[in-house]
Amino acid sequence: MDKSSQIYALFDALYTLEDIREVYRTSLPVLNPEEGLEVHDKLQKLKNILESLESGRGSQKTYIVNSLEPRIREEAYINIQPIQAGGRLTPEARKALISYADGYSVCDQCLSPFRLDKIRKPPLDQFHQELAKFLGMDEARVVPGARRGFQVVVNSLVERGDVVILSSLAHYTEFLAIEQAGGVAREVPSENNVVTGEGYRQTIEEVKKETGSLPVLLMVDHFDYMYGNEHDIRGIGEVASEYGIPVLLNGAYSVGILPVNAKELGVDFVVGSGHKSMASAAPSGVVATTEEWAERVFRTTGISGDVTGRTFGIKEVEMLGCTLMGVTVMTMMASFPHVKDRVLAWDEEVKKSNYFVNQFERVSGSKVLSETPRAHTLSRVDTSGSFDRVAKTHKRRGYFFSDELKKRGIVGPFAGATRTWKLNVYGLTWDQIKWVSNAFLEIAQQYNLDVG
Amino acid sequence: MDKSSQIYALFDALYTLEDIREVYRTSLPVLNPEEGLEVHDKLQKLKNILESLESGRGSQKTYIVNSLEPRIREEAYINIQPIQAGGRLTPEARKALISYADGYSVCDQCLSPFRLDKIRKPPLDQFHQELAKFLGMDEARVVPGARRGFQVVVNSLVERGDVVILSSLAHYTEFLAIEQAGGVAREVPSENNVVTGEGYRQTIEEVKKETGSLPVLLMVDHFDYMYGNEHDIRGIGEVASEYGIPVLLNGAYSVGILPVNAKELGVDFVVGSGHKSMASAAPSGVVATTEEWAERVFRTTGISGDVTGRTFGIKEVEMLGCTLMGVTVMTMMASFPHVKDRVLAWDEEVKKSNYFVNQFERVSGSKVLSETPRAHTLSRVDTSGSFDRVAKTHKRRGYFFSDELKKRGIVGPFAGATRTWKLNVYGLTWDQIKWVSNAFLEIAQQYNLDVG
Repeated sequence: MDKSSQIYALFDALYTLEDIREVYRTSLPVLNPEEGLEVHDKLQKLKNILESLESGRGSQKTYIVNSLEPRIREEAYINIQPIQAGGRLTPEARKALISYADGYSVCDQCLSPFRLDKIRKPPLDQFHQELAKFLGMDEARVVPGARRGFQVVVNSLVERGDVVILSSLAHYTEFLAIEQAGGVAREVPSENNVVTGEGYRQTIEEVKKETGSLPVLLMVDHFDYMYGNEHDIRGIGEVASEYGIPVLLNGAYSVGILPVNAKELGVDFVVGSGHKSMASAAPSGVVATTEEWAERVFRTTGISGDVTGRTFGIKEVEMLGCTLMGVTVMTMMASFPHVKDRVLAWDEEVKKSNYFVNQFERVSGSKVLSETPRAHTLSRVDTSGSFDRVAKTHKRRGYFFSDELKKRGIVGPFAGATRTWKLNVYGLTWDQIKWVSNAFLEIAQQYNLDVG
Repeated sequence: MDKSSQIYALFDALYTLEDIREVYRTSLPVLNPEEGLEVHDKLQKLKNILESLESGRGSQKTYIVNSLEPRIREEAYINIQPIQAGGRLTPEARKALISYADGYSVCDQCLSPFRLDKIRKPPLDQFHQELAKFLGMDEARVVPGARRGFQVVVNSLVERGDVVILSSLAHYTEFLAIEQAGGVAREVPSENNVVTGEGYRQTIEEVKKETGSLPVLLMVDHFDYMYGNEHDIRGIGEVASEYGIPVLLNGAYSVGILPVNAKELGVDFVVGSGHKSMASAAPSGVVATTEEWAERVFRTTGISGDVTGRTFGIKEVEMLGCTLMGVTVMTMMASFPHVKDRVLAWDEEVKKSNYFVNQFERVSGSKVLSETPRAHTLSRVDTSGSFDRVAKTHKRRGYFFSDELKKRGIVGPFAGATRTWKLNVYGLTWDQIKWVSNAFLEIAQQYNLDVG
């Protein structure tokens, strides 16, 4: 049940190719005989590694440098970690990562007007346009993570002391963006862990009454990080439009895994996370908006040098110029064709999620805390009445559960957690879903818990 | 003279291994027979590719996805592009890139208190400590690019209308950070393209006289982006300390390629760029400071949820929580042992730079605009009196020059530029330096320019 040694061989082969690549990087336009020999020797080494891979034997672990170990989590195990599922790279993204590894790798053909989203080769300009369209918006920019997208919008709209309303299930990075801009955060209470347009209306009215002003921005999570519950975006959009307050949609758990059309949802800004849901390297993300708002949040620089008289062209203030100049944007771009397809298969992902939670709840005392039937693949569960009962008397305590999952090739749940915890089954194949579902039942039976 | 087809074979081999890796990622804990066969077939394909690489034949270009081409600039050519030299990845960084490809790849062992710089496996905590020490500072944080480091400091210190003094050779991202925070930028004039402590003193006095207040921050580039000239950091540090104004050192062209001890230089903040000078993927960088200032710029969150009562632990406001959660920080960390060594070899890099410019100036009419002898590897040159004379009558105009360089396996100078332009010879071997130097002389001779 352990693929590790094969994965180590695979990494060793990749590393050896990188060593060969280095010979080409440090040579003159033609390799000298010594360099030719070095390549030859490394190719011999590589062939031996491939033989051990083919035989199934595999290799010992090869370190990256000093004691830095490779990460084999996604290859050797089935990973149901709650925040990692949608950020697993596609093979295309991994190939882009290899090919565009170096620092400023996308800037070879950076021509006037010298801005990341205007670069034509690789086709970043086209990608930016497609990204806006994909989100049902007019303009999109890539940013170093969703949080930086919040920052762009909040810094553009919020002055010190201004109120921003957000969900009581909002991600902490929304709070930090408000704090960084000097704004005041007000939460909307949830009902059954869902926030609604009416909830937002009530909080808007309270703020109006208390401060005499309307909040300057509403933020809402499409699906929240805690339960993966779907929130009433359309309702909130309608209320916002009544009051004339712009809405920012946090799509960290939706953009890239399910269809999101921001204009149709009635929001003014949408933010997505590359490393959370767009199969991209960290830190990456997207912020997109309407033509109306683009001028403000993507405003170009107006500052100048008083001595030199320098101005800075069409660089955008909140972007601080360019954002993702290398592998990060390349992984977003390389994964994008797959991402566009996969959002269309969201229903199947939800089916798998529901299959899983149904099996999961067959263990007596195991409960799903998220709304059911599930409309998402991220779920919050409670095993206080099942696996935690075992943990109470097990010598490994809560770790027994992680141990048992790992024995079955499954990782991801917070190590030692047996009360409330989260998991995400996004992107697993049906075979993997059934395997994982079965593992929970098996562990329950092994420890004499009732299985219905 | 063309290594391209071999590089394409190398990439094809890497891609094939990634395809094999994908089989392991989508399988159960043991491969089924079909998957085993798939691995076998791909290994056969790989062996064929390796044969064609070994024979020197190489391969046709393989696309990453659709029409997305691999980048072969660093392998097939000698690259003297001005901003890319210090950001070329080490083999160790490329191996880390492969192994930690996925979105949140460094977060597997994120335990309480849940912050990037506290993660022990991979050893991000240790890396952060070493990074601070390496810069002669007390505290360091990784950020998505040097510009985000400027933003951290400027947003912490500058209120709307506050004056920040910077060099008339400052990088545009310093201006944008000031603009983003609502500050006012004042430039210090340079003398012979160098700024000095006395220059800063004069501008401080002017600001004091005009506004009645002192500027709140001084920014200065260690080596500037335009000439690669060294500026009077110690002098500026002394003047700053007389007035009690903090200094931010922009080390984008120094941190990671030459020794920088910020406290010894007398500055309060130092910012470095991962993708410019630390052999790391973009966007990455570092901001480091003293114990005294750390409390302010790395202040932890104080905001809370009014409904839920939530607080957000020790997340840092200006970082917006965590910053580089995957490949970016991993490349910084994997390159770090090499980076620590290479800064000690800076003298040799400067020797190579001077060798090059001396040869370069042998072409009559070619001039170096940067200070000489060179103290850096980035240089601004003027070929108006040499290659531009050829361009005037050549049917390819300025592009003839890029063509001729490319024929000799050299890329990097701005395509078509034959008047003033920049180059960077950082990291080239002596053989490559001589090859590049010779290429300029050869091209001059070919077009009947005088060579002294």
